[in-house]
Amino acid sequence: MARMMKAQVVESPNNMVLKEVPVPEINDDEVLIKVKYCGICGSDWSIYTGKYAADQLPLITGHEIFGVIEEVGQNAKGIKKGDRVAVDICLTCGTCYFCRRGDGLLCESFTQLGIHTDGGFTEYVKAPWKNIYHIPDSMDDYTATFVEPLTATLQASKKMDARIGSSCVVIGCGLGVVHALLAKLRGCAPVILVGDSELRLNMAKEMGIDYTINIKEVDDPIAEVKRLTGGVGADYAIEAVGHHSTYEQAFAMLRRGGKLEAFGVCATDDLMQLAPYDFVLGEKKVSGSCAGIGNDWGDAIRLLEYKRIDPKPMISMVVPLEELEDALKELRTNPNLFKVLVSPEIKERVVF
Amino acid sequence: MARMMKAQVVESPNNMVLKEVPVPEINDDEVLIKVKYCGICGSDWSIYTGKYAADQLPLITGHEIFGVIEEVGQNAKGIKKGDRVAVDICLTCGTCYFCRRGDGLLCESFTQLGIHTDGGFTEYVKAPWKNIYHIPDSMDDYTATFVEPLTATLQASKKMDARIGSSCVVIGCGLGVVHALLAKLRGCAPVILVGDSELRLNMAKEMGIDYTINIKEVDDPIAEVKRLTGGVGADYAIEAVGHHSTYEQAFAMLRRGGKLEAFGVCATDDLMQLAPYDFVLGEKKVSGSCAGIGNDWGDAIRLLEYKRIDPKPMISMVVPLEELEDALKELRTNPNLFKVLVSPEIKERVVF
Amino acid sequence: MARMMKAQVVESPNNMVLKEVPVPEINDDEVLIKVKYCGICGSDWSIYTGKYAADQLPLITGHEIFGVIEEVGQNAKGIKKGDRVAVDICLTCGTCYFCRRGDGLLCESFTQLGIHTDGGFTEYVKAPWKNIYHIPDSMDDYTATFVEPLTATLQASKKMDARIGSSCVVIGCGLGVVHALLAKLRGCAPVILVGDSELRLNMAKEMGIDYTINIKEVDDPIAEVKRLTGGVGADYAIEAVGHHSTYEQAFAMLRRGGKLEAFGVCATDDLMQLAPYDFVLGEKKVSGSCAGIGNDWGDAIRLLEYKRIDPKPMISMVVPLEELEDALKELRTNPNLFKVLVSPEIKERVVF
Amino acid sequence: MARMMKAQVVESPNNMVLKEVPVPEINDDEVLIKVKYCGICGSDWSIYTGKYAADQLPLITGHEIFGVIEEVGQNAKGIKKGDRVAVDICLTCGTCYFCRRGDGLLCESFTQLGIHTDGGFTEYVKAPWKNIYHIPDSMDDYTATFVEPLTATLQASKKMDARIGSSCVVIGCGLGVVHALLAKLRGCAPVILVGDSELRLNMAKEMGIDYTINIKEVDDPIAEVKRLTGGVGADYAIEAVGHHSTYEQAFAMLRRGGKLEAFGVCATDDLMQLAPYDFVLGEKKVSGSCAGIGNDWGDAIRLLEYKRIDPKPMISMVVPLEELEDALKELRTNPNLFKVLVSPEIKERVVF
Repeated sequence: MARMMKAQVVESPNNMVLKEVPVPEINDDEVLIKVKYCGICGSDWSIYTGKYAADQLPLITGHEIFGVIEEVGQNAKGIKKGDRVAVDICLTCGTCYFCRRGDGLLCESFTQLGIHTDGGFTEYVKAPWKNIYHIPDSMDDYTATFVEPLTATLQASKKMDARIGSSCVVIGCGLGVVHALLAKLRGCAPVILVGDSELRLNMAKEMGIDYTINIKEVDDPIAEVKRLTGGVGADYAIEAVGHHSTYEQAFAMLRRGGKLEAFGVCATDDLMQLAPYDFVLGEKKVSGSCAGIGNDWGDAIRLLEYKRIDPKPMISMVVPLEELEDALKELRTNPNLFKVLVSPEIKERVVF
Repeated sequence: MARMMKAQVVESPNNMVLKEVPVPEINDDEVLIKVKYCGICGSDWSIYTGKYAADQLPLITGHEIFGVIEEVGQNAKGIKKGDRVAVDICLTCGTCYFCRRGDGLLCESFTQLGIHTDGGFTEYVKAPWKNIYHIPDSMDDYTATFVEPLTATLQASKKMDARIGSSCVVIGCGLGVVHALLAKLRGCAPVILVGDSELRLNMAKEMGIDYTINIKEVDDPIAEVKRLTGGVGADYAIEAVGHHSTYEQAFAMLRRGGKLEAFGVCATDDLMQLAPYDFVLGEKKVSGSCAGIGNDWGDAIRLLEYKRIDPKPMISMVVPLEELEDALKELRTNPNLFKVLVSPEIKERVVF
Repeated sequence: MARMMKAQVVESPNNMVLKEVPVPEINDDEVLIKVKYCGICGSDWSIYTGKYAADQLPLITGHEIFGVIEEVGQNAKGIKKGDRVAVDICLTCGTCYFCRRGDGLLCESFTQLGIHTDGGFTEYVKAPWKNIYHIPDSMDDYTATFVEPLTATLQASKKMDARIGSSCVVIGCGLGVVHALLAKLRGCAPVILVGDSELRLNMAKEMGIDYTINIKEVDDPIAEVKRLTGGVGADYAIEAVGHHSTYEQAFAMLRRGGKLEAFGVCATDDLMQLAPYDFVLGEKKVSGSCAGIGNDWGDAIRLLEYKRIDPKPMISMVVPLEELEDALKELRTNPNLFKVLVSPEIKERVVF
Repeated sequence: MARMMKAQVVESPNNMVLKEVPVPEINDDEVLIKVKYCGICGSDWSIYTGKYAADQLPLITGHEIFGVIEEVGQNAKGIKKGDRVAVDICLTCGTCYFCRRGDGLLCESFTQLGIHTDGGFTEYVKAPWKNIYHIPDSMDDYTATFVEPLTATLQASKKMDARIGSSCVVIGCGLGVVHALLAKLRGCAPVILVGDSELRLNMAKEMGIDYTINIKEVDDPIAEVKRLTGGVGADYAIEAVGHHSTYEQAFAMLRRGGKLEAFGVCATDDLMQLAPYDFVLGEKKVSGSCAGIGNDWGDAIRLLEYKRIDPKPMISMVVPLEELEDALKELRTNPNLFKVLVSPEIKERVVF
């Protein structure tokens, strides 16, 4: 008889059920991970409410996974029971037009663990052994759970490829805070964060961000960015909200020759209006991405290991697996919550 | 008494007068060039008709200049009377925010010789000695007159920075033909040219462009580009028309992860509609430029010297300076004309 | 009973035996290829004579493989019996420090098909399905056999990353001829080929290389390169010989700020002497590589498909599998031979 | 009669004389700077002792200049008396092969202010107005004097172009300390500093460098770097000493595929021995540079303005102009001295 585990299963939109399900069985190319912590991401809410990937239901969501190896497929190398690990959630074919050009995130059969296949809001999750990244002994569990969110911003940072000493403005103070930290880590100066949460903007300032702009208090954020950049505009701008109006705003905040890095997810029919003139005569640039992949995991782990980014101030609380649905709802209503972790191993909340 | 020369002066919109004007006097940092040939560009028409730079009138236009050095300012080095030369038409300050970052085309006090200051539709033109580039003895005069148009496309080619073996589609068969030739020269394959001129598309095919799409004959050019690229879409697209609809078309011709290089000049309020989603999930990219600058001249000369590009098939005729106004009008009405050169030294047209 | 096939097996150094061996059995992740042609590379001689990979013997060598799919493992996608294919010969782990950073050629457990495992001098060869690249219908068999040699030079071209309009000198007229063709294809001008074979240098000139230098006739090739580059030296240099003296020569041919692309394989203890001064004050650069990998195959196929490179003039003859050992020896003694292909399907030589 | 000023003039090797000399007269393209502070660099010692640029004597050395504008040439724009400024010391022609390709440090007629022409160990120094960079009001004088040393390391950082999350080892704890700080600022992790000064290595650790290796205490620094990088070797190495043996050591510290950034100046005939094999099969890379130029000044100022680098802990003392010769000698004998500034405006030493 199959071993059983408890899991939070989204059975249908807005219907999450805590139930016993079989522990996943692994094949020769997979490993089984015992989940220690799994962070909550905005996409978990989207799936829970049926706005995203509804055709995948029922599903165990959760993709910000930290755990220890429980079982190892026979083809796996360099991995053993008890290893502390994070997992690259991207599942790609490796041979399509896009994969072969290094554009794995565009893979024609792209799926992600915890988004399209069962994820981490449970006791055990399986993954291809090739997607496993080891966590150094020196790194604490909470920090290790932050690897995945860091990879997404890291991919954007690599695509943006900011010159050292460049000004950078970030719109949005969810993952935008991490984008801002990474821009600073990459040598940008000044780094400006635009958002609507006093709490998070203050946190960002305490973490070393040069300037913050609270759109509830500043009438013309575009003018303010110009002012803070000597009247020129920003060398780089990152949109981390996901709306055409903030995209157009970010584009307007750029100096001529500046680059917009697109990150915030919009609906496919949400259109921004840009003047070709601003590209031709103004030499502006746009690129974008939405997630981390491959060695973004290795790099994120190294940056956390050497304390280049400290995620602790961004972690608001840890809740038992049993309280996942509550936590999802609290995140929508309580602006003081930032990152919330879920653990199948604790019985009571830990609040920071 | 000042030496006089004949010049075609745009006195006011649609009013071009052939008249005697003083030969320009040079300062210590300038040289005087005796014009041999000066090509006609679309912007000459725009200035002539008052659509562009009307506040600069009266003006001698003409910026595709080939000539020989007539007089040398005393600070000039390595230049002597009789040297065959082309001239970088960009006049930049060298110290503004943009110049210091290598973005000379964005210079806060940017002007161009022949567009904002007197140019080459005359007998003599002056220029800063530092903007002078020597033409090798082995290069004929007509080819030398093609340096400037090549620089503009070369700058775009550098900004596009296509990977070897990438597919590239170019929309527009004016300078678009040169963009296509450069894409091939840079190792793109296949190169696809989209336009409405049977004559030019055929010329392009004869010059080695892989595929042409005549929009008068092909109902769905986007689908055709997809078909020619194995169903994927183009790795790179260059818009060389200057209208939001062709920009949106070029963007749609791109594969996910592909890059649009903006070149065609639109009105500042001509807006294209793009989905942020296509940047974030589709990882598309946009950059742009409008002209050559600096060593684009040196590079263009080298490419022509070593016959990497042969401009001859694109030169339709050479007209005497006296016939400039006629030629400008003929270029608007005669679709068989491509590049037309003007010379103050000939008395009769040379038609190819 | 196992199906049998004929194969040329290097049993021990200098001992090649044509014998019947079992047709390889494939697993679920592999395909079986029926060999049509397999080119001879210098490394085949090195293995045959025991200078390289002697610990792998007995071995069927041959890695420039073109064939048709005979059998398909059940995990393979998009591949069917009869498909015309080339095969990426690099076998990498995908998870070591190097693989995860995109440096697959440095994989800690790197092996190559036909060099460390059985290759193409036989009737059938197996390979991982993920390494298979399709050959377009429009491409003839001989051209298809040239994919692998092109990938190695293509990888070097990508690493060199020459600016358009740059001068490039290549030392060596084996694969050096292909390096020179690729440099031209990438927009370099002029391209200079240095070698000792009148025949091959002439062939290169006919294929469009700007200048050739026969070291048997030119006393000071470094001075000659300087002369051909306006007294400056070359922007890029590729060493495709494999000796410290030609490396030092290539380095000396560079202009200050120029880049040396290392390709020719030397013994591990063959040292070149370079002045740090030339890097610090002279800003010279060195990088290198030795083989193609991954989508170098896709790119090489596309360049051949669109006739950007025509390998035909470089193919000297095709010999039956039975004559492989003879051909290996002839290649050492007959300077008129360039690329020689081997086929298990023909009975008589085809000489071009 | 000319205005006079006091200056430290190197009249001949080892012969420095404090004397009255005329204040420099500026032309229309120059400005006159009243020197506030000028840092001492190793090259000042080299010129003083006749090891470098002896043909330029007599000379006022000193090129790490901070001052205020005293007089403005009439062509200068955006500069007025009293402005606090740093000055790009590179004097380039702008039109040679190298300048036109953006390689100004390789200019055929390259000279540097304070090295080949009179510099800052005096009361007034003149410079081209285009080389002037403004110092923000918020930046203190000592920090402003650190701009030039930062530019040199910044140029190296740009050339090295390290990926975020890469390991980097720096050999040498003079400017090597700044290289290490910049590597960290650019996102490298871990950063390892190798040197022989306990004092400076400790300072570096306090400033955030991850690991230091004191070669007086560690037998095998190469093995130690391997150990600190998980057995792999460093992704990047910077040589900031200037000897072939440390160059070879730095090269050996690299992982396969790693890049050596050459910075330490060696004699032109001081040769390192490198195996081509390590470039071809090992894919190592080398590049180099020796100084900052152009907007390295702008970028350095911005990084200091936003406190990304704090030079204060590295400034050991400030001495009156009168004590320059003493200070030069003390720097050779007192290992506790790091950066020493000179001021013509103070009468007594300030020691930190």
